[in-house]
Amino acid sequence: MTANLARSVAAEATGTALLVAAVIGSGIMAQSLAGGNVALALLANTLSTGCILVVLILMLGPVSGAHFNPAVSVVFAMRKELDLNRLAAYIVAQIAGAVAGAVLAHAMFEQPPFQLSTHARTGAAQWLSEIVATFGLVGTILGVSRVGLAATASAVGLYISAAYWFTSSTSFANPAVTIARSLTDTFAGIGPAGVPWFVGAQLVGAALGAAYFGWLLGAAPLRSVSVRAGERPEDQAQPID
Amino acid sequence: MTANLARSVAAEATGTALLVAAVIGSGIMAQSLAGGNVALALLANTLSTGCILVVLILMLGPVSGAHFNPAVSVVFAMRKELDLNRLAAYIVAQIAGAVAGAVLAHAMFEQPPFQLSTHARTGAAQWLSEIVATFGLVGTILGVSRVGLAATASAVGLYISAAYWFTSSTSFANPAVTIARSLTDTFAGIGPAGVPWFVGAQLVGAALGAAYFGWLLGAAPLRSVSVRAGERPEDQAQPID
Amino acid sequence: MTANLARSVAAEATGTALLVAAVIGSGIMAQSLAGGNVALALLANTLSTGCILVVLILMLGPVSGAHFNPAVSVVFAMRKELDLNRLAAYIVAQIAGAVAGAVLAHAMFEQPPFQLSTHARTGAAQWLSEIVATFGLVGTILGVSRVGLAATASAVGLYISAAYWFTSSTSFANPAVTIARSLTDTFAGIGPAGVPWFVGAQLVGAALGAAYFGWLLGAAPLRSVSVRAGERPEDQAQPID
Amino acid sequence: MTANLARSVAAEATGTALLVAAVIGSGIMAQSLAGGNVALALLANTLSTGCILVVLILMLGPVSGAHFNPAVSVVFAMRKELDLNRLAAYIVAQIAGAVAGAVLAHAMFEQPPFQLSTHARTGAAQWLSEIVATFGLVGTILGVSRVGLAATASAVGLYISAAYWFTSSTSFANPAVTIARSLTDTFAGIGPAGVPWFVGAQLVGAALGAAYFGWLLGAAPLRSVSVRAGERPEDQAQPID
Repeated sequence: MTANLARSVAAEATGTALLVAAVIGSGIMAQSLAGGNVALALLANTLSTGCILVVLILMLGPVSGAHFNPAVSVVFAMRKELDLNRLAAYIVAQIAGAVAGAVLAHAMFEQPPFQLSTHARTGAAQWLSEIVATFGLVGTILGVSRVGLAATASAVGLYISAAYWFTSSTSFANPAVTIARSLTDTFAGIGPAGVPWFVGAQLVGAALGAAYFGWLLGAAPLRSVSVRAGERPEDQAQPID
Repeated sequence: MTANLARSVAAEATGTALLVAAVIGSGIMAQSLAGGNVALALLANTLSTGCILVVLILMLGPVSGAHFNPAVSVVFAMRKELDLNRLAAYIVAQIAGAVAGAVLAHAMFEQPPFQLSTHARTGAAQWLSEIVATFGLVGTILGVSRVGLAATASAVGLYISAAYWFTSSTSFANPAVTIARSLTDTFAGIGPAGVPWFVGAQLVGAALGAAYFGWLLGAAPLRSVSVRAGERPEDQAQPID
Repeated sequence: MTANLARSVAAEATGTALLVAAVIGSGIMAQSLAGGNVALALLANTLSTGCILVVLILMLGPVSGAHFNPAVSVVFAMRKELDLNRLAAYIVAQIAGAVAGAVLAHAMFEQPPFQLSTHARTGAAQWLSEIVATFGLVGTILGVSRVGLAATASAVGLYISAAYWFTSSTSFANPAVTIARSLTDTFAGIGPAGVPWFVGAQLVGAALGAAYFGWLLGAAPLRSVSVRAGERPEDQAQPID
Repeated sequence: MTANLARSVAAEATGTALLVAAVIGSGIMAQSLAGGNVALALLANTLSTGCILVVLILMLGPVSGAHFNPAVSVVFAMRKELDLNRLAAYIVAQIAGAVAGAVLAHAMFEQPPFQLSTHARTGAAQWLSEIVATFGLVGTILGVSRVGLAATASAVGLYISAAYWFTSSTSFANPAVTIARSLTDTFAGIGPAGVPWFVGAQLVGAALGAAYFGWLLGAAPLRSVSVRAGERPEDQAQPID
C-alpha cells in the first residue's frame, strides 16, 4: 500500500467515523433534551448531520475524495474514476470507520459500546424513500462536483439536511452508515432486519442516479463551469436552438 | 429536439419534481412530528425547501438555467434570454415535473397518489403576498446572477426561506409549484379554487419585478461584478457625483 | 440627480423596505404560529431576517453598497467613502423605505397600515446592547468587505442572526429600522419613547466601531486578502516579529 | 511590541471577547425564552455561536489568524507557524478577552458582572467528548485552511454547531472560553472544579489532532487545492495506484 493510498483509506475511515458519531451522538443528545417533541429532536439531528458533512468534505475531499459512502464509491468506480483495488479498500474503511463512530458516540454519552437497534424501519414507502434519497445524492455529487470543492461540500450537507425531512426513512442514503446505525438502540437506530432492504434500495438508487444523471449532465469529460463574477454558463446566457 | 434541448427540458422537469417532492414531503413529515406546533412544522418545511433549492440550482443551473418556475422562464423570455420554443417546452416540463413530484411525495409517505387540497388560501392579503414574493424572487435572480452561479443558488434558497415567513401566503411564488400543491391534501396544500388567483398574482409580481429591477440593476448588458479579494464594485469604493 | 444616483437611492429605499417587511412580517407570522413559545418565534424571526439580509446585499451591493442603515452610511462618510450629498440622500431613502416596509408588512397580514408600538424597550442594559451590536456590525462590514461581496453579504446576515440572541435588545443596530419598528404594534415593535435612546446608542456604537476597527484593521487603503485556494494571508502563514 | 503585533493581540482579545459574549449572552436569552425546553434553548445557543464564529474569522483572520483559542495557538506553535513570543501574547490576550466577554454579556443582561458557575460538568464521558471535540476542531482548521479563508471560517462555525450536539459536553473545545464560562452562573456555565479537566482534555485532543491530521493531510508545505470551477483535486479526479 502506497503512502498515498494509506492516507486516502485513513481519510475515508476517519471521515465516516466522525459522520456516524455526529448522526448517532446528536440523536442521543437531541432526544434527551427535546421533551418528547420528535420534530425538535429531528431538527437538531439534521443540523448536526448537515453541518458535519460540509466540514468533513472540505477537510478530507482533497485527500480521498470524501466519499464516506460505499454507494458513492461504487458510482465513481462505475465511471472509471476509482479503480477496483481502491474501491475495495474504501468500502472496508468506510464500514470499519462507521462502526467505530457508533462505538465512539456511545462512549461520549455513557452508553454500552455495542447495541442492537429495536427501531423497526421497513416497508415499501421507506424503501422507495431510500431509492429517491440516494438517487438525488448521486445527482448532487455528479452535478455540483463540476462547480468545485466548496460548492460540493455545501451541496451535500444541504441535500442531506433537506432529505432528512422529505423522505419517510429520514434519508440514510449510505450503506456503511446504515450498518452502523443498526448497532445503536437510540434515536438514529434501525433494526438489523431492515438493513438489507435499506442497503439494497440505496444501491438501486445509486445505479439509477449514475445512469440518469450521467446522461442528463453530459457523458463527456466534465466541462468547466465558471462561477466567477459576471460570467454565466452558456446555456443560461444565450437562447439556444 | 436537439440533445441539448432534451437535456434542458429533462433538467427542468427533474428539478421541479424534486423541489415539489421536498416541499410536500417535508410538510407531511413536519406536521406528523411537530405535535401540533405549526411554527415548528413550518420551520422544518422552510429548512427542507431552502436547502433543496440551493442544491438543485447548483446541480442543474449549468444544464438548463435551473428555473423550475414558469414565472421565471417568462421573465427570461421577456428579456430575450430564452426563445419562445424553449419557453413553451420549459413550462410544460415544469408543470409535468411538479405534478410528478407531488405523486412521488405521496408515494414516499404512503398517501393516495392523487388528492385535492381542502386548505383554502385566498384573500387580498395573500394575493398581495404572492405579488411581493415573486417580485422579490425576480429581483434576487436578476441581481445575483451577475455575481455567479454559487451566489445565485444560495440567494434563491435564502430568499425563499425568508419569504416563507414574511408573507401571509408562505410565498409559493411559482405557478408550477402552486398547481402541484393543489393536488395534495397535506400541510403544503392549496385548495384548487385559490390557484388561479395565486398564479395571477405571481405573474403580476414577476412582470413588476422584471420591469423594476431591469431599470434598477441597469438595462445594459450585465457588467462584471468582482467578488475577488480586495476589489470592490465601483459604486461602493468611490464617492460619486 | 444623475441616473447613477437615482438608482443608488432607489436601491437603498427598496432594500430597506424589503428588510423591514421581513423583520416585521416574519415577526407577525412567527408569533401567530408559535403557540406562545417566544424562543421559537424569535428563532423564525431570526431566520427570516438573517436570510433576507444576505440576499439583499448580494442583490443590491453592486448598485448602492447595500447599506440599508444610516449608521453604516455615516461610517462610510466619516471614512470619506461616501460624499455628504449622497449621505443625505441615502438616509432619507433608508427611512422612507423602512416606513414603507412596515406598511407593506401590515398590508400582507391584514393589519392597519399605521400603528404605534406599545412594546417598551428601554433601560441601560438594552442601550449597552445596541452600542455593542452596532459596534460589532461596523467591524463586520469594515473587516469582511476586504474579502469580497459574497463574504460580506454572508457575514452581515450571520452577524445579525447571532446578535438577535446575544443582546438583550435583540440587536436593532439600525436607526431607520428602529424608526419603522416603532410604527408596528406587533412582535418586532418598539414603543416610540424608546427610539431616541436606541438610535443614540446605535450612533455611539457605530462611531466607536469606526474608530476602533479603523485602527485594528489598518487605516491604510484596504490591502488585498486572498481567498483563493492554497494562499493564506501573510499574518497567518508566517511567524512575525 | 510592533504595531503589527499590537494589532494581532488586540484582534485575538476582541474576537475572543465577542465569541464569549455570544456564547454566554445567547445562552441567557435562549434559556429565558425557551419555556423550559432545553433542546430549543441549545438550538438558539448553537445558532448564535456558530454564526458569530464565521463572522469573527472572516473579520479578523487576516489580522491575527483568528485563533481565539489557546489550544489552536499551541498547535500552530508546534507546527512552527507561530513563534513563542507571539504564542504567549496570544494566550494572555485570549484569556483576558474571554473574561471581558463574560462581563460584557452579564452587563447586557443586567446580571452581576462576576459570578461562579454552579453547573457541574464532569466525568469521563465529558472529558472524552472534549478530546474528540478539540481533535476534530484541529483537523478542521488544518484541513480547510488549505482551501482558503472563507471556507475555513464557514467550516469552523459549522463544526462547532455540529459538535454542540454530538458531544455530551456540548463541545467547549477551547481553554480560554472554558475559563470564562466558569465565571457565569447561567446556561453556558461550568463549575470551576470542572475546568482543569476540561482544559486538560482539550490540550490532549489538540495534540492528538495535530499529530494525526499532520500525517493524514501531509506533512509537507501545504499544497494548493483548487476550488475554481471545473478543476478537481488530483486524488479525486484520477484513479491512483
